[in-house]
Amino acid sequence: MKILIIGANGHIGKIITPILQQRHEIITAGRNSGDVSVDISSVASLENLFAQIGTVDAAVCAAGDSITSDLLSMTDEKYFTGVQQKLLAQINLVITGLKHISDNGSFTLISGKMGEHPTKGSSGKAVANGAVNSFVLAAALEMPRGVRINVISPSKITDIATEDLINGYLKSITTSANGGIIRIGYN
Amino acid sequence: MKILIIGANGHIGKIITPILQQRHEIITAGRNSGDVSVDISSVASLENLFAQIGTVDAAVCAAGDSITSDLLSMTDEKYFTGVQQKLLAQINLVITGLKHISDNGSFTLISGKMGEHPTKGSSGKAVANGAVNSFVLAAALEMPRGVRINVISPSKITDIATEDLINGYLKSITTSANGGIIRIGYN
Repeated sequence: MKILIIGANGHIGKIITPILQQRHEIITAGRNSGDVSVDISSVASLENLFAQIGTVDAAVCAAGDSITSDLLSMTDEKYFTGVQQKLLAQINLVITGLKHISDNGSFTLISGKMGEHPTKGSSGKAVANGAVNSFVLAAALEMPRGVRINVISPSKITDIATEDLINGYLKSITTSANGGIIRIGYN
Repeated sequence: MKILIIGANGHIGKIITPILQQRHEIITAGRNSGDVSVDISSVASLENLFAQIGTVDAAVCAAGDSITSDLLSMTDEKYFTGVQQKLLAQINLVITGLKHISDNGSFTLISGKMGEHPTKGSSGKAVANGAVNSFVLAAALEMPRGVRINVISPSKITDIATEDLINGYLKSITTSANGGIIRIGYN
């Protein structure tokens, strides 16, 4: 399988990429690292990426920034960071990627536990994560050509068992799962 | 109680406003209607609103646009409409309104059933609604001075019993509910 991994150099990307490389052809992409440079907040940059790499069987996004801050220190700009970098960027990957993904291919996005079970200081993360989860639930209903979409929702990286994380990604990429919020490390 | 209602002239606003007016002092505000003009997507416009009306005991938002469209016709701009007009606008209302709301006051936002139970064509709504729900869950943990925040999540207006809708708003405004996703007309 030819798999695009965006954010392969992040905490989660570093765990899953070597495992997926054992059995699949992996292309990594990121703003500052990877085989190909891409800024997924830009549709033009995504189109340029796919022009270079061609069709893929799976697109995985393990990247997306949002701001952690006390509610009373949050500003519209801080909320917008997560909205732009984690939510709209991943939506861009899907709406652009749909033109470049194989029949029966898959998208695997990333959200996070704070979307469903927030803690103090997490409202910026909660907004982005909750929106990504809802996007996946909705988009899964309309994927064309057998394409599937799921989202990995991890807890803090320190609360995650490596095996659970890998199994979550394999479930999304290699099974018939569609529209799943795959929760990892929730207690 | 002095209650600000944004979007009093919309489908839901028209149901709840006359009921709340029976017992409370109501100030209505909206882009094109209401006692005071406001564009809640602009923090400056919200500051100007509160400069005119002073402190309120409850702030209710029953307004927020998002785009309904088949997934394959959605664009980044269409998603951004809901993000800006329904999500970021309501966040603006809260972060600006916190400076102008009474101790033990309340915010009542609006989301919608498509955030949790989307149907085909609803991905634009799903994103905005899911994000608003998660914002409320997170923000409720950090409200200062006894202030509370809840969100009304209505189904389609035709599936809603008027009494349920009114009871939902009264629960948010007049009880100790905090961090609630108040679902109306779900089947």
